[in-house]
Amino acid sequence: MSVPDLEFYRLPDIPLVGSGDDLGRMLSRAIAAAGLTLKQGDILAIAQKIVSKSEGREVKLADVEAGEQAHALARECDKDPRLVQLILDESLRIVRKRPGVIIVEHRNGIVLANAGIDRSNVDGEQDRVLLLPADPDGSARRLREALAAESGVAPGILITDSIGRPWRMGSLGVAIGCSGVLALADLRGRPDLFGRPMETSETSPADALAAAATLAMGEAAEGTPAVLIRGWPATGDDQPASAILRPAAEDLFR
Amino acid sequence: MSVPDLEFYRLPDIPLVGSGDDLGRMLSRAIAAAGLTLKQGDILAIAQKIVSKSEGREVKLADVEAGEQAHALARECDKDPRLVQLILDESLRIVRKRPGVIIVEHRNGIVLANAGIDRSNVDGEQDRVLLLPADPDGSARRLREALAAESGVAPGILITDSIGRPWRMGSLGVAIGCSGVLALADLRGRPDLFGRPMETSETSPADALAAAATLAMGEAAEGTPAVLIRGWPATGDDQPASAILRPAAEDLFR
Repeated sequence: MSVPDLEFYRLPDIPLVGSGDDLGRMLSRAIAAAGLTLKQGDILAIAQKIVSKSEGREVKLADVEAGEQAHALARECDKDPRLVQLILDESLRIVRKRPGVIIVEHRNGIVLANAGIDRSNVDGEQDRVLLLPADPDGSARRLREALAAESGVAPGILITDSIGRPWRMGSLGVAIGCSGVLALADLRGRPDLFGRPMETSETSPADALAAAATLAMGEAAEGTPAVLIRGWPATGDDQPASAILRPAAEDLFR
Repeated sequence: MSVPDLEFYRLPDIPLVGSGDDLGRMLSRAIAAAGLTLKQGDILAIAQKIVSKSEGREVKLADVEAGEQAHALARECDKDPRLVQLILDESLRIVRKRPGVIIVEHRNGIVLANAGIDRSNVDGEQDRVLLLPADPDGSARRLREALAAESGVAPGILITDSIGRPWRMGSLGVAIGCSGVLALADLRGRPDLFGRPMETSETSPADALAAAATLAMGEAAEGTPAVLIRGWPATGDDQPASAILRPAAEDLFR
């Protein structure tokens, strides 16, 4: 009987998360409910949505006052001016815009549509939206500590979001926050099969794991917002997901 | 004992692949050598490199004559003019260039650096390079048929390559060819947890699986060029990876 090298376990038993909830404890219970025990090297992939909810990042659109720039951009892009105001508040700059699409560089450095503000799966009234965590890498660090306190094992943490990309259709899960996971692996100069130095420079284990974990989470009503990843060693290092962000000055596409 | 929902098995026992080799048979043997038996729904992720090698896509740089445009571009981008000639031959257009970097739209529609031409892990002399398969979706279809003939089960096939991306550092595995795998999943209009239609439009299961499979393959001398994925149902459909490519006219970044 062969044993898989890399495994993804869905954690279905996560209750609806609200502001102030102890997410570390909820995740710890969901791991136990799935019949699992955290082991050294395990990584927990957690959907941004429940992290944001636990951190009280919901905003009522009725409480937002749209300024002049937001009104103009809302007309141009055919969006709610209050949502556009929030997008502007959350962003450093607009990267591209056209009707229906506003792609920005978020204050945290991530380039994504609508500053990652999401209307789906937010409990309560129709006019509530959810912002990204204020500091996703900090959230990941804190969740790592909380899980370590609960279980005695510090898992790697990936906070994932599903974002669009140039050139290719279909959103893909990426790591917007992480702790104790290899964000980037540098391969430069390592020998290839024939002893020549590799030409590929870097890969992003964190993003690769986030992509498959997001797929395993599923979507819509049948989805689960957390997945345990086993078989890819979490590094001990506290490498932030912000390390994955390409500096704007080196980027040919913004 | 909990069972993983999504599993990746490395297939280490793949011999060096040469032009004309029966890759279907080699993969079939590697699956058996790993103690596995193909099951309905299994997906085989295969690195582009061994597909290209089996299809004789190696080129000797000494056999390439660089034209005027290639010489000029080679000077501008600090590359071998013969390699640049191959990049131009393989491409529809140049998307971005600067010293050290030529990003093109490949004739197959994929946007990537150096038209995906690779010097690493090519056997033999230093001056041999490897082009992408001429028709990666066709290669995937043929491999699916070959595996089905060997084993009686038609696995989904992903032909993967590791490519760079805007905004984020670190290359990521994507599906450059596929057969019998959901290239894109359309979620539009499906109800979320609270019954409201989802706003996210599409995801790419093929690319998400390719990302993690490429991570599981590993890199450099300790890598293996094929991984078996279990737990994500291959569709029966023969969906090509070309469906993932965003039409140039709808792309804000080329």
